[in-house]
Formats: sequence, structure tokens, C-alpha cells
Amino acid sequence: MSSLSLSSFSFEDISTSAVDAAEAMFGELTQDVRDLVDVTIRTRVNGERVSRARALVREAAALLAEEATPGPAGVHVNGEGRSWNWGNAVVGVRNAVAPPVRLDWQVDGSTRAALSLGAAYEGPPGCVHGGVSAMLLDHMMGETASAHHTRLTVTGTLTLRYVQPLALGRVRMAARISGESGRKVTVTGWIGADGADGPAVEASGLFIIPRWAHGPAAPAGVGSLD
Amino acid sequence: MSSLSLSSFSFEDISTSAVDAAEAMFGELTQDVRDLVDVTIRTRVNGERVSRARALVREAAALLAEEATPGPAGVHVNGEGRSWNWGNAVVGVRNAVAPPVRLDWQVDGSTRAALSLGAAYEGPPGCVHGGVSAMLLDHMMGETASAHHTRLTVTGTLTLRYVQPLALGRVRMAARISGESGRKVTVTGWIGADGADGPAVEASGLFIIPRWAHGPAAPAGVGSLD
Repeated sequence: MSSLSLSSFSFEDISTSAVDAAEAMFGELTQDVRDLVDVTIRTRVNGERVSRARALVREAAALLAEEATPGPAGVHVNGEGRSWNWGNAVVGVRNAVAPPVRLDWQVDGSTRAALSLGAAYEGPPGCVHGGVSAMLLDHMMGETASAHHTRLTVTGTLTLRYVQPLALGRVRMAARISGESGRKVTVTGWIGADGADGPAVEASGLFIIPRWAHGPAAPAGVGSLD
Repeated sequence: MSSLSLSSFSFEDISTSAVDAAEAMFGELTQDVRDLVDVTIRTRVNGERVSRARALVREAAALLAEEATPGPAGVHVNGEGRSWNWGNAVVGVRNAVAPPVRLDWQVDGSTRAALSLGAAYEGPPGCVHGGVSAMLLDHMMGETASAHHTRLTVTGTLTLRYVQPLALGRVRMAARISGESGRKVTVTGWIGADGADGPAVEASGLFIIPRWAHGPAAPAGVGSLD
């Protein structure tokens, strides 16, 4: 069994501007890798070209592996409260698996996001995989429960209702806190096609502030533990 | 709004052996891209090396784009009942976003899977993203509902209960049909760390056989519409 605690987070003595610069540089590399993931699905080139492409991809990976951490990216925070979770599967700017989702915080504490989901997120023909919608909603609703990263939350339960297929392309998402009681936060959310009449998937979830993260010693700025 | 029907599937006149050969060739390329995704998260090389790696990645992508379909991969089936959904976000063998999951069908109709989840699937520090667990379970439970691809199903509702954190690394999953009534199939499933005492996430879901896919005209071999 794995466990989480305050020591799961790495507090690093690095300036916010240095974090921003590294994020920008590696973020551009990751965007190139996302484009490669996309065309790897769609390509129809012959075996000779596939072999040449593989050699290039392996050369790039070897170059990047010359200096690399052995484990996952983790979640970090500096003394100024700037946090970064570059490997996160939904929002990680250095993770080509992540679209990534960028949350737009509203003044009332709710969140919105707009993004494009391409060939890498397919389930039914031409449609977003139902599991991808679940993944994105879980994350967004968890962050929403964290009240703009002023507290740590973990997912307790999540219920998804699939209303209609969601075409690949531009999608919109939204989430808001619908109730709070002690260490429990209830959040509702939805995802739908940009411009569509109603949502494709509706969700409600119970998010919990762990005992170890409840109180004045809890780290600020780290956000949800999705 | 997007819609799905029998015409969403592409029936192709191609032999199973040709499908298998293409799958093997592009699958090897995709495994190289998965390794690149992983090291893109973990690398600490300097800007000069990042620039060289970006040039290689872009060259590979351009080579693969010389002949490529414009849209997503879709779901295909040939006259022998061999189906392929290479772009699927969970099981797509040409999709570097997918781990991919490979289902092990049991004689009683239940399913199991064992796989490794690395840095690209992180949520909490060192742990599998809760949304990734949701995504994998949604797919596996949907396929299980399809009764070994003898009928088409779509997800109606899915409820997830997060029991404990799930460490990155080797994980196990299982799903089984727990009830059936008309076009409704109820499935339960779980995911947990390999060797752990209990599951990390438990799930139950209602899967539905769409009206348009109910009856003798429904295609065999296509499986679930996750």
C-alpha cells in the first residue's frame, strides 16, 4: 500500500522565474512530443519510413536520458507558493499524455476549461473516450474542491452519467462546489462539445480533506491530490 | 451533438494477417514514442540538448506526416471478424497515451489485466492519478459488458470509490458482469497495486446496449464503445 503525507511533497529552494523558464522550455519540447503522438496514430507511411522515424525518436530519447531523474516528476512547491506538477496526467505541462487542461478560475470559486481533444483521446469512432471524460472531470473537480489551492483534497467517490457521445475536437468543461461539511466537499461538473446544447457527461463527486492535511500546518499552493 | 450508429464503423477488405503485420510494425514505433513521453517528463538536460532533441522529434513527426489520415483512427473490422481500434485512449496499440491495457478474458466471462503505470500516469506524488484509474476501469468494464465482443455496449453511469492511494508501478485490474436486464448490463471492477491486500479503487457501472446495436444486424467483433 502506498501512503501520502506532507512529506510526499518536495519543497524546493528555486525562484519562481527559474521555475517558469524551465516550464516554458520543457513545455515546448512536450508540445512537439504531443504532435508526434498524434501523427503516430494517423500515419500511413511505409516500413522504411517507420524505421527512419523510430531511429530519430530513439536518438531523441537517448539524448534526453543522458541526465534524467529515475522516478516520476512528483509535486513541488517553492518558498513563494509556486507549485508545479509537471508529470500530472491531466494538467502536466511536461506530460504528453496530458492534453493539458488549463483551469480558468472564476470569482465565485467555480472553474471552467476549454481545450481540444484530438486522435489520442478517441474511444468510440470519432468520439472522446468515456474514460478520458472521467479522467478530466476527476481532476478538474478535485482542483475545484481545493478552493483555488487553499487546501488539499483527495477524491472519495466520483459518479459519472453519460448523456450523449462527445465528438473529438473543441470541448468545454465546468465544475463548482455544491456543498461542504467538515472535511467533506461535494463538487458537480460536466464536459460537453463546444457549442453543443447540453453536456455529454455530468459528474458529481465527494472530495475529502485528509486528516494529515487539515490544519494550519497544511501546505498552501499545492492544490488537489488527483 | 455527435451520434453513433453502425455506419460509425469501417468495414475493411483486408486480411487478418495484413492487419497483424501493420499492428506489429506501428506498435513498435508507438512503444518508442511511449519511452520518449516518459523521458520527456524525467529529463534534466540543458537547453542545448533540449533543442537538439526537439529537432529530432520534429523530423520524425514530419516524416510520419508525409502520408497520414487527417482524422482519428476510428474503429475497423474485417470480414473475418478481426477488429482494430489502434487509436483508443486505453487499449490503442498505436496510441502512446494508452498504456496500453491488454485484457485477459476468463472462461466465466470476467476479465483481468496486469500492467505497469509509469511517470506519465502520475497524480499525487508517486501515485497513479485517480482519473487514470477511472479511465482504465471505464474501458475494462465496458469491454467486459460486451461479453467478449459479442454485443456493443456504451457506458450509462459509472461510480468510483477511492479506497487508498495507488503507487505507480505494477497494477492489477479485474471486472465482471454482476447483473443483466434487457439492454442493461451491470459490471463491477477494481484496480489495485500488484501484491497489495485490497483494491485502491472500486467501481460499479451500468452499461447499455444501444437500440441501434440490438438485434441480428449488429456487428460482431467490435466490442465496447468506450
